[in-house]
Amino acid sequence: MEEIEVAPPQANEVRIKIVASAVCHSDLYHLFESMHKDGFPTVLGHEAAGIVESVGPGVTEFQPGDKVIPLFISQCRECRFCKSPKTNQCEKGWASGRHNVMSPADSRLTCKGKKVLQFMGTSTFSEYTVVNQMAVAKIDPAAPLDKVCLLGCGICTGYGAAVNTAKVEPGSTCAVFGLGAVGLAAVMGCKAAGAKRIIAVDINPEKSEKAKVFGATDFVNPKDHSKPISQVLSAMTGGGVDFSLECVGNVGVMRSALESCVVGWGVSVIVGWTDLEDFSARPLQLMAGRTWKGSVFGGFKGRDSVPQMVKAYLDKKVKLDEFITHNMTFDHINDAIELMKHGKCIRTVLSVSPQ
Amino acid sequence: MEEIEVAPPQANEVRIKIVASAVCHSDLYHLFESMHKDGFPTVLGHEAAGIVESVGPGVTEFQPGDKVIPLFISQCRECRFCKSPKTNQCEKGWASGRHNVMSPADSRLTCKGKKVLQFMGTSTFSEYTVVNQMAVAKIDPAAPLDKVCLLGCGICTGYGAAVNTAKVEPGSTCAVFGLGAVGLAAVMGCKAAGAKRIIAVDINPEKSEKAKVFGATDFVNPKDHSKPISQVLSAMTGGGVDFSLECVGNVGVMRSALESCVVGWGVSVIVGWTDLEDFSARPLQLMAGRTWKGSVFGGFKGRDSVPQMVKAYLDKKVKLDEFITHNMTFDHINDAIELMKHGKCIRTVLSVSPQ
Ligand SMILES: NC(=O)c1ccc[n+]([C@@H]2O[C@H](COP(=O)([O-])OP(=O)(O)OC[C@H]3O[C@@H](n4cnc5c(N)ncnc54)[C@H](O)[C@@H]3O)[C@@H](O)[C@H]2O)c1
Ligand SMILES: NC(=O)c1ccc[n+]([C@@H]2O[C@H](COP(=O)([O-])OP(=O)(O)OC[C@H]3O[C@@H](n4cnc5c(N)ncnc54)[C@H](O)[C@@H]3O)[C@@H](O)[C@H]2O)c1
Ligand SMILES: [Zn+2]
Ligand SMILES: [Zn+2]
Ligand SMILES: [Zn+2]
Ligand SMILES: [Zn+2]
Repeated sequence: MEEIEVAPPQANEVRIKIVASAVCHSDLYHLFESMHKDGFPTVLGHEAAGIVESVGPGVTEFQPGDKVIPLFISQCRECRFCKSPKTNQCEKGWASGRHNVMSPADSRLTCKGKKVLQFMGTSTFSEYTVVNQMAVAKIDPAAPLDKVCLLGCGICTGYGAAVNTAKVEPGSTCAVFGLGAVGLAAVMGCKAAGAKRIIAVDINPEKSEKAKVFGATDFVNPKDHSKPISQVLSAMTGGGVDFSLECVGNVGVMRSALESCVVGWGVSVIVGWTDLEDFSARPLQLMAGRTWKGSVFGGFKGRDSVPQMVKAYLDKKVKLDEFITHNMTFDHINDAIELMKHGKCIRTVLSVSPQ
Repeated sequence: MEEIEVAPPQANEVRIKIVASAVCHSDLYHLFESMHKDGFPTVLGHEAAGIVESVGPGVTEFQPGDKVIPLFISQCRECRFCKSPKTNQCEKGWASGRHNVMSPADSRLTCKGKKVLQFMGTSTFSEYTVVNQMAVAKIDPAAPLDKVCLLGCGICTGYGAAVNTAKVEPGSTCAVFGLGAVGLAAVMGCKAAGAKRIIAVDINPEKSEKAKVFGATDFVNPKDHSKPISQVLSAMTGGGVDFSLECVGNVGVMRSALESCVVGWGVSVIVGWTDLEDFSARPLQLMAGRTWKGSVFGGFKGRDSVPQMVKAYLDKKVKLDEFITHNMTFDHINDAIELMKHGKCIRTVLSVSPQ
């Protein structure tokens, strides 16, 4: 294994000592599914928390010792997207353009003098990383980093997809497809928004119990039915759900999620990440009054919202501990990847440096 | 040519003498494009106005002599869709289920004793038609039927798609693809909603002048450009339009319309009718913050809204005359169809019976 060099912070940059980093399916997507030829060599990892080690010139908001969460969606606060309450897109970050290679053109990481890509602008499977200050959230000093690291991706993504993107309404019926951390967080978001019924859908029957912990009222395994899952949900709900969330990253499931929505007002949100294939449906399925949306990082503007989500966890309004099925030291990272690959964990938290 | 028999009205039905009927592309779609084997024999026509000739038992809202517009989307006022302000779907009408054959199972039309289908529940290319009262709008007695017939489909469809479905915002930038009556009405809707810039897109350069009449600020012919139209619009608008409306009925154009929208908050609405192919896009195109919607009849609940649109026309708040490029007597119906087939008209109004 080669040593990775992490450069000192330049202007407006923050160098972060990573304390804890969890494994998200997007790491696996890049590694095993997309395998984009220009996306390597890279340092994976993007769901983490750490401590500011040093700051570059022009950084005033952060100082060494601050607890922070690196953000894969920047918030520059200056572009037209940052200034709009409608979106968490940011014109300045890597994410506006380089989705396929999942990394910015620029990187502060090298190996034997050769550039190594910074996955999702963060690369948190590393003792240190360097990130522009517009992609760092300062959080409560009381926050346990080995828990709140989950707010760096999966939990905000699923929770926000329900609350911000779908805008789940009180009394509504929801379906969540895929019960990894993202889907379970979506279930939690549906519940927080007041959904009356939350149908959790996964082809892995082991996910059923966990779904109930976060508020699911029903669990359906598509493999237990000969009919298409959208027909099963339609029959269970007298015509379809009000809101559905796809948290798998599979275009077939995206279509099922749309088709599971009731006509007239059903809203389906694409959360699962895939850039390999098109999703599709019949025009009349939208014309009948359904809406298809999607979001990244649950629509949360990271610098504003991640500190609030940390606070919500400290105030016991948002669960995090229940997502963590495994804790390991950083050197077991390959075991952690294998666990997710085989559907044997929800989240594995890797302890990278002492807190 | 065989004689069609139109039965007397049964319970809750209204028999209407059709005075004027226009040709809409959906008639051509059924006749030339879909050609569904179970969709014939049928009497086409669905954009019309007439006078109540007789009513069946249980009809209290209508009486002979009333001016009316038959509706292809019913409004029963009792189902959960009718009771919701979110949609104009209605559980009771033919449209909930039989989209492919574009007609109810039931029909009041026969030819030599054999059932003839009632296209879109209306069949207005006929001296008389019989419709359930939940699919009839009573309109102002002062309304000129040879003009307001257009409110039976195309104009409400396009106008409402902009105003009700896209919910175009003041100061926004819009693109409308396809400049038949539906698209031109969408342009009119964008303007009424306060759009600052309205880019009209059509492959037929003859549509340019007409688009300006309804409020378009720009006209783009995709054939004049080597780059994809979405890139042309993105360059014209610094990143894409806020709202786009597809008024063609072509899945490739549906994708272009979505891709023409700005990330973050762009909303694209499918208005053009086709049930032959899937529409598609890349998941990340929605995840970047775009929304894909669709509507039928512009999201208008017909019995409530058509009378209001008639009023808006009488008050000169909505244009209708400008859509009418040809007037013909009913016996020239085949010429009217040919005109639309060759892109030589916006709307042809057929005079069926004297007013
Ligand atoms: N939009 C974003 O910003 C964002 C952020 C993080 C993750 N993601 C994506 O969200 C998805 C989920 O991530 P995760 O970390 O929770 O993954 P995960 O691997 O832990 O969970 C995925 C779940 O989907 C289930 N599944 C697989 N096929 C299914 C099917 N056909 N029907 C129903 N369930 C099925 C699996 O059994 C598993 O439980 C991934 O695609 C990931 O890349 C998106
Ligand atoms: N959703 C609904 O309730 C509803 C109601 C009525 C009509 N429709 C549908 O709306 C569509 C339009 O109807 P219309 O009566 O205005 O039709 P029309 O034939 O008068 O107009 C269609 C226009 O699209 C243009 N066009 C064709 N290909 C194009 C392309 N690739 N790019 C840009 N423009 C292109 C044509 O030149 C023409 O001007 C049809 O599909 C019709 O079936 C839907
Ligand atoms: Zn920004
Ligand atoms: Zn992630
Ligand atoms: Zn109804
Ligand atoms: Zn029509």
